[in-house]
Amino acid sequence: MEMMNERIFVINYKSYSTSYGEKGIEIAKIAEKVSKDTGVRIILAVPFTEIRAIASSVEIEVIAQHIDPVAEGAATGHVTAEMVKAAGGKGSLINHSEKRMLLSDIEEAISKLRNVSLYSIACASTPRTAAAVSLLLPDMVAVEPPELIGTGISVSRAKPEVITASLELIEKVGGKGIPVLVGAGVSNKEDSMRSVELGASGILVASAIMNAHDPEKKIAELSYGLLKKT
Amino acid sequence: MEMMNERIFVINYKSYSTSYGEKGIEIAKIAEKVSKDTGVRIILAVPFTEIRAIASSVEIEVIAQHIDPVAEGAATGHVTAEMVKAAGGKGSLINHSEKRMLLSDIEEAISKLRNVSLYSIACASTPRTAAAVSLLLPDMVAVEPPELIGTGISVSRAKPEVITASLELIEKVGGKGIPVLVGAGVSNKEDSMRSVELGASGILVASAIMNAHDPEKKIAELSYGLLKKT
Amino acid sequence: MEMMNERIFVINYKSYSTSYGEKGIEIAKIAEKVSKDTGVRIILAVPFTEIRAIASSVEIEVIAQHIDPVAEGAATGHVTAEMVKAAGGKGSLINHSEKRMLLSDIEEAISKLRNVSLYSIACASTPRTAAAVSLLLPDMVAVEPPELIGTGISVSRAKPEVITASLELIEKVGGKGIPVLVGAGVSNKEDSMRSVELGASGILVASAIMNAHDPEKKIAELSYGLLKKT
Amino acid sequence: MEMMNERIFVINYKSYSTSYGEKGIEIAKIAEKVSKDTGVRIILAVPFTEIRAIASSVEIEVIAQHIDPVAEGAATGHVTAEMVKAAGGKGSLINHSEKRMLLSDIEEAISKLRNVSLYSIACASTPRTAAAVSLLLPDMVAVEPPELIGTGISVSRAKPEVITASLELIEKVGGKGIPVLVGAGVSNKEDSMRSVELGASGILVASAIMNAHDPEKKIAELSYGLLKKT
Repeated sequence: MEMMNERIFVINYKSYSTSYGEKGIEIAKIAEKVSKDTGVRIILAVPFTEIRAIASSVEIEVIAQHIDPVAEGAATGHVTAEMVKAAGGKGSLINHSEKRMLLSDIEEAISKLRNVSLYSIACASTPRTAAAVSLLLPDMVAVEPPELIGTGISVSRAKPEVITASLELIEKVGGKGIPVLVGAGVSNKEDSMRSVELGASGILVASAIMNAHDPEKKIAELSYGLLKKT
Repeated sequence: MEMMNERIFVINYKSYSTSYGEKGIEIAKIAEKVSKDTGVRIILAVPFTEIRAIASSVEIEVIAQHIDPVAEGAATGHVTAEMVKAAGGKGSLINHSEKRMLLSDIEEAISKLRNVSLYSIACASTPRTAAAVSLLLPDMVAVEPPELIGTGISVSRAKPEVITASLELIEKVGGKGIPVLVGAGVSNKEDSMRSVELGASGILVASAIMNAHDPEKKIAELSYGLLKKT
Repeated sequence: MEMMNERIFVINYKSYSTSYGEKGIEIAKIAEKVSKDTGVRIILAVPFTEIRAIASSVEIEVIAQHIDPVAEGAATGHVTAEMVKAAGGKGSLINHSEKRMLLSDIEEAISKLRNVSLYSIACASTPRTAAAVSLLLPDMVAVEPPELIGTGISVSRAKPEVITASLELIEKVGGKGIPVLVGAGVSNKEDSMRSVELGASGILVASAIMNAHDPEKKIAELSYGLLKKT
Repeated sequence: MEMMNERIFVINYKSYSTSYGEKGIEIAKIAEKVSKDTGVRIILAVPFTEIRAIASSVEIEVIAQHIDPVAEGAATGHVTAEMVKAAGGKGSLINHSEKRMLLSDIEEAISKLRNVSLYSIACASTPRTAAAVSLLLPDMVAVEPPELIGTGISVSRAKPEVITASLELIEKVGGKGIPVLVGAGVSNKEDSMRSVELGASGILVASAIMNAHDPEKKIAELSYGLLKKT
């Protein structure tokens, strides 16, 4: 699914007021432009209600922020992998710290996504839980210490050892090659550059973009950080 | 929002394989046609991912099957009232038995919907919980004994006393005038007719339509049941 | 179960370090002494692990802080009404804001307690949810705005209208006579006196006692507040 | 904590009517006798309300069936590691399939138990989730395919590959030496014998004992199965 040394940049729209409607599409188009300009693989994790509209507006990948590991049928208010796919989504975040999941449901959700050829980005907040989710066969792992989310204090600055320990432990348990993303507090070029230096494949960013006065400038800045020769 | 003696027919798409994509729109158009033919107010409770597509395809009301009572912002994987509204939804089911909610969250969700001028249909499974949710100021109440959901055995046949007791108790606690819908097992004209006879304003139906060989025939049948002079 | 004009004082042990072992029994004996001295009905809501030890150490009532509305059998890690009773408990708190429950589970838990002749004190945080739980036939209702819990700022001072509105609404929906307790921030004599003046039957207190340097003095103070002629 | 080749037999009392009061102590004493007779390490996972009474009645280990990963203090209705320890418990089951936990809470619960020198037995239902929990540093891992729980059809007969795959994967990710228990449907000597043959250190059993007409005979039978030379 990804090329060697590919740089990955997931924009988590969360449920900011900029995450839906025209603003959501506007950010998507900006991200698409930056992705084309830089070659960075930008993935948009958007609200369920916006998957189809955004996926049909841009060529870069759109994914869900969560799926419920339920079978199709009598599941009112749930989001299935099949629905995400039908709407044009390519995958989903799983177990984000704002939507934590039961261990057994994480495995089931990853499996249900794979069954319909969608990919999963499993989130975790510590090195050991990151390694644990890597065993459940997600396509990528994102590491986000929840105490830094939304702070503007990057994990790559404040707790680089969380990233390096996660990478080491994931590799040790057989996850060599699985792309690892750095989340929580990533807000400037230095942060994204440092993430790659520490060995990550990319970043997972929300507030720095969704609340930005100039989202294009911010997306470009973070993208160029990912590409900086180290 | 509703007229006196208006008949209401909520089609809960749940997450059936017919709930999304072209099939979901097809059922919506059929429902729209039957609604125009019969004057029954048909409301479509559709998957989050389909709200915008279906709402822009038909003139009848489209609602969500659930919302999370969270504020906009850092709420990954959640569905806010604002998102539903932006996608063209007019309201939401709340506390469906397949997506039960904390008591405090029910009040908060109804309030969040109202704040953005969306309506709520609060579900309950017993007379006392139906009366309890009616105190939280929803726009309608739906009563569904969960043991009958999906069985094809209508509550109006098997447990009519659940409906009458719900209506009495809701009225007793000050909810006179709030439309009450009958759910669980509603599957034929007799069922919808009986629901109105018992004093309900309408029905909440899922499997009988979503799994129907001929959805138009089934939607029409249930609609005519609602209109039958008693 | 309670006499007219009886004053009720529930001490919620929560899970403070003083809630278990010798300290937990010590506070229970102090409460028993104050109860005998003052005639106030003091009820101890203690950790599951302490119900039997405390219930066998004092003559005043001991209750659980929660029960799970499950049937006996294959329910690992759950607490049934039967277990609470077997340990000597007389009832349970239900739906405390630190252990919120699904609406349907609140009704079921109250029913399961009653089935084994235990009583329930259903908690709520707003007037409307308080009235809603009163319809589910609990033996008492406790009103606690969660934002004041543990603050030392009493609801009877900061938000007396929450208490009066709760009492009015509960009475309006048919709950006249059900004892209503005031919780959240109750910390001195003035607070407990005010609670009774507002029409409540008593108080639900945690931190003011569990963290007190002199629990006896504090329990006595709050008890005398409940008895003060107004 | 355990010796080489030690055989471990966890009796999960669940919430059967035999799990509390005199019957619970009776089963504990029987288990203690069998443990002394056979040398099998029998551990009793009992209801919260019974930990102290049973732990003070027998010399074999008593553990909780669950703990909540919360700090002491304002946590009504929760069970802390400290409470379990104060009541005489030596550890706890974690993430039983009837009390599933969020991934992040599993790590936190194991950590909280260890902080007060209690041990943890983390449950999982598949080889990959078993390996995942083994990374969170529990003291033992129990593997129980939930579809077999309570059936009397042992996993060691029906799905031996679940056990062998779990053992292999746990070892592969660095968990060599961690005792693995086999659960779900273990009901006779053949089952416990097979569990050891497959490489497990012991068994986790509930209904076969809690519902037995002659618990002593059943506990002895399963214990001797664990000891059988293979």
